Amino acid sequence: MPGPLDPPPRLLMGPGPVNAYPTVLRAMSAGMVGQFDPAMTGYMNETMQLYRQVFGTSNEATLLVDGTSRAGIEAALVSLVEAGDRVLVPVFGRFGQLLCEIAERCGADVHVREVGWGDVFEPEQIEKAIVETEPTVLALVHGDTSTTMLQPFEGIGEICERHGVLFYADVTASLGGNAFVMDDLGVDVATAGLQKCLGGPPGSAPISLSPRAVERIERRRSIEAGILDAGDEIVEIPGRIRSNYFDLAMIMDYWGERRLNHHTEATSMLYAARECARVLLEEGIDEAVARHRLHGAAMLAGVRGLGLTPYGDVAHKMHNCVGVEIPPRADGERVDGEEVRKMMLERFGVEIGTSFGPLRGRIWRIGTMGYNARTDAVLTTLAAFEHALRHAGVGVPAGGGVDAALEVYR
Amino acid sequence: MPGPLDPPPRLLMGPGPVNAYPTVLRAMSAGMVGQFDPAMTGYMNETMQLYRQVFGTSNEATLLVDGTSRAGIEAALVSLVEAGDRVLVPVFGRFGQLLCEIAERCGADVHVREVGWGDVFEPEQIEKAIVETEPTVLALVHGDTSTTMLQPFEGIGEICERHGVLFYADVTASLGGNAFVMDDLGVDVATAGLQKCLGGPPGSAPISLSPRAVERIERRRSIEAGILDAGDEIVEIPGRIRSNYFDLAMIMDYWGERRLNHHTEATSMLYAARECARVLLEEGIDEAVARHRLHGAAMLAGVRGLGLTPYGDVAHKMHNCVGVEIPPRADGERVDGEEVRKMMLERFGVEIGTSFGPLRGRIWRIGTMGYNARTDAVLTTLAAFEHALRHAGVGVPAGGGVDAALEVYR
Repeated sequence: MPGPLDPPPRLLMGPGPVNAYPTVLRAMSAGMVGQFDPAMTGYMNETMQLYRQVFGTSNEATLLVDGTSRAGIEAALVSLVEAGDRVLVPVFGRFGQLLCEIAERCGADVHVREVGWGDVFEPEQIEKAIVETEPTVLALVHGDTSTTMLQPFEGIGEICERHGVLFYADVTASLGGNAFVMDDLGVDVATAGLQKCLGGPPGSAPISLSPRAVERIERRRSIEAGILDAGDEIVEIPGRIRSNYFDLAMIMDYWGERRLNHHTEATSMLYAARECARVLLEEGIDEAVARHRLHGAAMLAGVRGLGLTPYGDVAHKMHNCVGVEIPPRADGERVDGEEVRKMMLERFGVEIGTSFGPLRGRIWRIGTMGYNARTDAVLTTLAAFEHALRHAGVGVPAGGGVDAALEVYR
Repeated sequence: MPGPLDPPPRLLMGPGPVNAYPTVLRAMSAGMVGQFDPAMTGYMNETMQLYRQVFGTSNEATLLVDGTSRAGIEAALVSLVEAGDRVLVPVFGRFGQLLCEIAERCGADVHVREVGWGDVFEPEQIEKAIVETEPTVLALVHGDTSTTMLQPFEGIGEICERHGVLFYADVTASLGGNAFVMDDLGVDVATAGLQKCLGGPPGSAPISLSPRAVERIERRRSIEAGILDAGDEIVEIPGRIRSNYFDLAMIMDYWGERRLNHHTEATSMLYAARECARVLLEEGIDEAVARHRLHGAAMLAGVRGLGLTPYGDVAHKMHNCVGVEIPPRADGERVDGEEVRKMMLERFGVEIGTSFGPLRGRIWRIGTMGYNARTDAVLTTLAAFEHALRHAGVGVPAGGGVDAALEVYR
């Protein structure tokens, strides 16, 4: 029989999950209340109100999907998209590909536009693609951790408005660490997760839906036979949503005034989500974004100070994540990026990230997000990184990383 | 800004969620580790092994779906069932109806057989329906909290085996509190949740799949473009699984030796699930079932001792839940069941359950499960219930409930 949990201390400086805020961890150990206890429905209402502020929206339909961030994505797409609907996905990394994959499984007619990994789109490219494909939904990642890039959203909402396209945005990696005001940007549906700049554990997906998106989804509403009252009629729904668990019409009925039973809300994860938003709003969103900008800049300066090359178009990278090209050894031999990560984890307890697909073996990814957007976290990581690089045979200037970061903090 | 969390103390004696074991709550406040940290993959492997014992199976594919119990149901059905496949659902309550609803959304050709709420099926009825409908999958609820009934499973696995039918069972409400040995019963796929007899929070769904079920699902495997290595080929998959999040082929690749990235495992919920299983196995499954039997019997005796009538065929009720018919007042007037519940919650901090659909306003449901299958929880509930009933104008014998329960404990 394995013993009680006792996870090793880790400083998680990868692209997420990261260490959760201590108050978020403590919130999860609070006692259970019943599903429709006034205390619970009160917490649900508070959580809706808190996330309206986090997303920068007045959308009534702002709530949690019970699952990790990709559960939020799938809930958004399966509820918005009927089989055969055209969906346009501009792809600039792995998470754009994920949107395609999920939209395809919803039965969408998916149209893809791509830029190279490390780049982002110009609004004109997106408008041109909209004109060419006439989609029902534009599905766009805001920050893609696979490349660290942040897609500028300015102007895209207006383009969607002009062409009558619903604008879905995956803001999992960016929210809370980069400027995002949903209503100002004209985003119809946004989904997130807790495990990046919000500083919580993975497992809950905040989502917000504009009245226009809600209207589209409500046309597809059905009610489960098991909770119909005697005498209620069962009506055939055209374009019925293909998922029960992710049926946002039902989930809105559960979170809304009707309080119709759907799933049993994941109590402890709701506690965590509520506390993540509280921590963020107590700091202030602008202040939190500025903090991510500062510590992101320090980390960027630090990796450059170690003589390393940041990956991609850094003018467009997220504040909270930087890609670092794996350098050759001083003797010209190849460096095994995984060995460097392993030494950092095993000897220093510091985790940095590996990469996927075309970038596998080419870059590391280093995050500075949520609770870990802190001076001590940045400097500790750079110090450990320097030693691990030297140990791997890479020529690095002594103290070059820490000194460059300290220069940013001065 | 709402303040920090401070949920009111509640004794949750409804049909779930119930109070979590204190060690489970504490486990959730343990620190984060990275997604592929050896500590994390070690915990995943331990969790698989623990749930093999909980389910009573040697199935390699025993893991968690990140969502509430209905996420587990949907993952099972959407992964097993291709559009047009015939699925047979014997319905004896709301959760059978839910299986129909989810199977329909997966595109199944759903065939339903029903018995009245409060009853269960004979194996012969199920075999007859299998012969008539020749389904690919039999989807059957084990314990349905809507009616409190436990469907006997003896002989059903053999019937499925004989007719080449896959046997899916929803054991959310029964597992850990009623005998269930998956392999002995010939169940191919079973799904559960933490918030009933396992004594955890809602939000994680343990699942186990037989080699036969795995083989069927693996034929539908695809790999996301975003994590393909350079040179990997994208192959068109016939009968592709309609969901990404619930694609058990991918989820098995994530939990298995390949460790292919899918979602980011919900760390804190995994900690909770692991601890729930540990607590159960430290007590011993047989001992835990016996404890649920004892406290269920005490609660049943208690409600009878209060002069109330238990609902349905009590010979077939789950150990962990009893339905109680809402009695008339002494003056013959109708009792508002919600008022009784409200008084218990507000004055005593004790929650008992309401009902759905055809039973709404007709019965209360009282649970004795997980951490709350305890003498003090049973007696406190019966004492509060007696007062609330009297307050509502119901004639109840003084001390009748507590005395009858104490008689069972003697």
